[in-house]
Amino acid sequence: MINHKGRVRPIGLLLVVWCAFTMPGRAQDNRTLSLMPVPASVQPGSGQLLIGPSLNISLQGHCDSRVERAADRFLQSLSKRTGIPLRRNADDFNASFIVTCGSAGPKVQALGEDESYRLDVTANGVRLDAPNALGVLDGFQTFLQLVQVGQEGIVVPAVTINDRPRFPWRGLMIDAARHFMPPEVIRHNLDGMEAVKLNVLHWHLSDDQGFRVESKKFPKFQQMSSEGMFYTQDEIKEVIEYARDRGIRVVPEFDMPGHSTSWFVAYPELASGPGPYQVEHKWGVFDPAIDPTRDSTYTFLDDLIGEMAHLFPDQYFHIGGDEVNGKAWNKNPKIQEFKAKRGFKNNHDLQAYFNERLQQIVKRHGKIMEGWDEVLHPDLPREIVVQSWRGQKSLAEAAHQGYRGLLSSGYYLDLMQPASQHYVVEPLAGAVAGLGPEEQQKILGGEACMWAEFVTPINVDGRIWPRAAVVAERLWSAQEVRDLNSMYSRLKKISADLEWLGLTHQSSYRLMLERLSGANDMHALKVLADVVEPVKGYARSKAREYNSSTPLNRLVDAVHPESDKARDFAGLTGRLLDHASTQEDLDAMRKALMSWRDNHHQLEPVLKSNALLQEIVPISRNLESVATAGLQALDYLSAGGHAPAAWRDQQLAMLQQAGKAQAELLIMVAPSVQKMVEATVPE
Amino acid sequence: MINHKGRVRPIGLLLVVWCAFTMPGRAQDNRTLSLMPVPASVQPGSGQLLIGPSLNISLQGHCDSRVERAADRFLQSLSKRTGIPLRRNADDFNASFIVTCGSAGPKVQALGEDESYRLDVTANGVRLDAPNALGVLDGFQTFLQLVQVGQEGIVVPAVTINDRPRFPWRGLMIDAARHFMPPEVIRHNLDGMEAVKLNVLHWHLSDDQGFRVESKKFPKFQQMSSEGMFYTQDEIKEVIEYARDRGIRVVPEFDMPGHSTSWFVAYPELASGPGPYQVEHKWGVFDPAIDPTRDSTYTFLDDLIGEMAHLFPDQYFHIGGDEVNGKAWNKNPKIQEFKAKRGFKNNHDLQAYFNERLQQIVKRHGKIMEGWDEVLHPDLPREIVVQSWRGQKSLAEAAHQGYRGLLSSGYYLDLMQPASQHYVVEPLAGAVAGLGPEEQQKILGGEACMWAEFVTPINVDGRIWPRAAVVAERLWSAQEVRDLNSMYSRLKKISADLEWLGLTHQSSYRLMLERLSGANDMHALKVLADVVEPVKGYARSKAREYNSSTPLNRLVDAVHPESDKARDFAGLTGRLLDHASTQEDLDAMRKALMSWRDNHHQLEPVLKSNALLQEIVPISRNLESVATAGLQALDYLSAGGHAPAAWRDQQLAMLQQAGKAQAELLIMVAPSVQKMVEATVPE
Repeated sequence: MINHKGRVRPIGLLLVVWCAFTMPGRAQDNRTLSLMPVPASVQPGSGQLLIGPSLNISLQGHCDSRVERAADRFLQSLSKRTGIPLRRNADDFNASFIVTCGSAGPKVQALGEDESYRLDVTANGVRLDAPNALGVLDGFQTFLQLVQVGQEGIVVPAVTINDRPRFPWRGLMIDAARHFMPPEVIRHNLDGMEAVKLNVLHWHLSDDQGFRVESKKFPKFQQMSSEGMFYTQDEIKEVIEYARDRGIRVVPEFDMPGHSTSWFVAYPELASGPGPYQVEHKWGVFDPAIDPTRDSTYTFLDDLIGEMAHLFPDQYFHIGGDEVNGKAWNKNPKIQEFKAKRGFKNNHDLQAYFNERLQQIVKRHGKIMEGWDEVLHPDLPREIVVQSWRGQKSLAEAAHQGYRGLLSSGYYLDLMQPASQHYVVEPLAGAVAGLGPEEQQKILGGEACMWAEFVTPINVDGRIWPRAAVVAERLWSAQEVRDLNSMYSRLKKISADLEWLGLTHQSSYRLMLERLSGANDMHALKVLADVVEPVKGYARSKAREYNSSTPLNRLVDAVHPESDKARDFAGLTGRLLDHASTQEDLDAMRKALMSWRDNHHQLEPVLKSNALLQEIVPISRNLESVATAGLQALDYLSAGGHAPAAWRDQQLAMLQQAGKAQAELLIMVAPSVQKMVEATVPE
Repeated sequence: MINHKGRVRPIGLLLVVWCAFTMPGRAQDNRTLSLMPVPASVQPGSGQLLIGPSLNISLQGHCDSRVERAADRFLQSLSKRTGIPLRRNADDFNASFIVTCGSAGPKVQALGEDESYRLDVTANGVRLDAPNALGVLDGFQTFLQLVQVGQEGIVVPAVTINDRPRFPWRGLMIDAARHFMPPEVIRHNLDGMEAVKLNVLHWHLSDDQGFRVESKKFPKFQQMSSEGMFYTQDEIKEVIEYARDRGIRVVPEFDMPGHSTSWFVAYPELASGPGPYQVEHKWGVFDPAIDPTRDSTYTFLDDLIGEMAHLFPDQYFHIGGDEVNGKAWNKNPKIQEFKAKRGFKNNHDLQAYFNERLQQIVKRHGKIMEGWDEVLHPDLPREIVVQSWRGQKSLAEAAHQGYRGLLSSGYYLDLMQPASQHYVVEPLAGAVAGLGPEEQQKILGGEACMWAEFVTPINVDGRIWPRAAVVAERLWSAQEVRDLNSMYSRLKKISADLEWLGLTHQSSYRLMLERLSGANDMHALKVLADVVEPVKGYARSKAREYNSSTPLNRLVDAVHPESDKARDFAGLTGRLLDHASTQEDLDAMRKALMSWRDNHHQLEPVLKSNALLQEIVPISRNLESVATAGLQALDYLSAGGHAPAAWRDQQLAMLQQAGKAQAELLIMVAPSVQKMVEATVPE
């Protein structure tokens, strides 16, 4: 068991957002700090630090080469974001940015290392103090978020920040099995993670659709189970080093005994059924499973895990363990016999037997086993970690039994839910809230999950970012930090910042719309794309037959999971119905509605010219109808609220139709218009 | 002397743009081929090839691993641009894309290798044939440009293309000395070069401001002359390999005997003066120069060039040789004595002596020397290559004397000229046109030049691209290809394509505008930014004191060198004054003018909030005045053309003011409005 300090309480005064803070002695100089995640304590100071080419860093205390590299990268980032040329000069003894590092930290980053830091910015300079290198990395990121351009130039307002995370395990899972994600994609996502202080990359490396890691011992994995798409061991090592430099642990997942069809293409002797096997190209839960009854299985796994445990230095090793449907076991008489002989009541018992033996192997190689909900079984030792895709109830149950757990239910980024929906998911809520403090300490944190059935390297950034940032805040900041308006306003800022790191969530959106627009101007397509969202949950899988060869190049693949424009319009609608609109609000609503109403006319020739856009014609027409209804409703509401009953019925019927998914897309302004129509009084 | 085939004549029928080509048997299916550079011959075929996940490539003939990698990259690019998952399956014997390669080409790419190819696309498949691997690479790029999205899906129209370049040397010079450009910047620019068939990276690696290459023999170069910004030899090798994979030669330039202040920081014994020396931070022409009179100089250079000749395998070696002002030589009595003893009439003779000895060294190391105009001197052997920043006259003189030459005059991308201005610069025009055919054969081609005083890694892509593509076309396509409308329409397409390669000329523009807008919406700033351009030529150097520490983060650093919107507006104005406007034209003019007129009101609070935007206030106000005048002129012109004389005088005076540079920016719609006002008839 590793020695980790577990969850910590926020210290000091919490300032969710420090709004309209007026600098003493300066007229009309309103500044807003836009930090995400919100630090544990923020104390405004007096004055501001001007950033200029002479800014330099001095490293003191136990700063090692990792911190040196971090300081270089910090200055590069600061230079990029400000346009001011900055370079570290190690010989500068008058540096105005002094970093003091208490310890360089262990060679392999451990769960629960101290990530706290204190950042002091005054008009004269900066002090960043941290007991451990990780806190220095965190402090650098906070500083970058403090940079503002104001009337006096590029500045950082004076401030004292004392900060530390609430949970020690703040992860992002990336599925590289369903669609392979090249190392470059992983790397810039690690940059994004660092920016919002996520500290675990959970790398889903094998599944029915592929085994993505080079094995020296079992080369048939890359030769036969990967279709040529795998990470070499050198690439893995580079990613791990890259992650460590950014204060991020890398936990590999090799999913077994289910989700392992691809394994059997190379090594059919591991399977419960006779085969033959092919790398799976469809999505879903499949029958093939490892045969847990043969000793040879464990000899093989011992070798494989031995090799992978060496390649991945982190102390945790994820064995998946989810969604075993048991069909392959049921079909195999020898396995049935084995179950009967051992007195196993069901396949869950059999899987627990597998997990138990697996856990011994994992442990023998110096690792702690982690698995999804399904691994939970009283026969397993208490040191394993359970990752819950089912929810707080399952997590509470695990904690109650003495297991440590992570929440991922509610943090599935592939379900296309708005940031707000992920943001309110609290690991310590629900059934977990009913646990005692010691049991609550078992909740290590959580992980945002990016399952990759519907993403490619082109659009994956736009599925992860910026929404992963709100999960990062949930896991870092105090439970009380939950104002949605503040969150969205800060999210907008961080989203822009992330593009400077090479993330493409904004630029790819434009590229994909340009691709769909062909030789036409993309403006009209963007007007539509800006107010639609992909269908939610698992609706896409049900909409048509998808597989790994299906092009993901349609409008649904391009649009953002969450429409900012539609959310803004919903806010305007809310104020309208609360009779709280300003004239500016009303003008903005009318202008937006008119642009949506008039868009179909502009867009029609573009839609007609392109096979990939044929499916969009009805949704574009629907937007026209919805906007027309919205404009009429606005007129009625402005003129007292009465509307002809027949018009009202007709619009509500139309809106019900227009609210339905078309081309796997939803018109996100339809619900707002529906509210407006509903608010009219039938004559 | 290497054996190169020199310039070739375009073969077959030339189709500048193949407009509105109707597919036989398909109604209303207008397609335009948008190829840049325009191939030597394009023959439309019948039908089209549908691109789907089953598309696969078969490599035949003498295809080596370079072509294999190119095929992989080609499929990746095609996949990126279409969204269709594509991967090369080497075992597929039914591949529909058959590549036949006559020869793998020499290990080190040589000047004048055969770059021709034949590309045959039918409804059933593709044949790409080339006598040499380079032609295969070129053919892949042409195919990528042919991809279109149409009513039937993603297609390539049937076509037969026979293509080869007009000039064998088509280069891009990147200055990595004034502002260091990290390897990643060089790499994605190599991707851009490949896309438009440029085949020489001329890498300007040393100057007064830095020596950017690691030397194992003279490590003080990187230690003392680079301020920490240099390429390691491994990085250089990687870039060269990367370039070779893309059919691009890498020619290094070490500028001497002038432009070498940074050298003397490390090795003062090379200098003509006593020093002390510091790495230069300012821009311009400086006095320090290598002492050409000492034998020790040549011993040193022999060692250095020996090392660098080994590191850079290309047969050409650029020694700079430009802008030696001679002051350091004049000040040194020993050098004066040397000149007198040798009977040198002037410093040009002294430099020729230096160049002669340098040429012997370069030749001894197996290379051919290249230099700027100034190296031209009858004492030098005819094998050297002269790069002309002075123009065709100087080039003709060189060719007449028997030297081979390259044109760069007219291709300086740092001068912020419009694409059209570079496009019309013809290497075989002017004095060169008067040469005989054999002398004309001495003109190898040309190079676009990106001098780096005013660019950083953030905005350099936007300075190079897309304008470098028109220089590429000038050097590849027939002399007769020069229609500006066609060029601009194809440039727009290639510009969008280039972003898929990782070039940031469009995305960085947005990021820089977002950075300047801070927490404000960037729309208003973009309205202004879209119609202004940086001042032209060397006006920026004169506008204020710049040096290498000056932040390049102002609006002038963000805006495009050429405003598409202003050019479009100039087109509309032209039609208006020719009485050829449609109602749509007039509506578009009015809409544009109104948005510019109303913009200052929106932008004012943003400008006020940001120190970096204070300088923009007058230009934003001027845009308002210009647009107001434009709207009034439009009214007068629509109503017969008469306008009050006083109004007219007032507007012309205002426009004269508004046409002047402000904040190093020019309002590019002002000249159009001026024409409109001038077209009114004073009452």
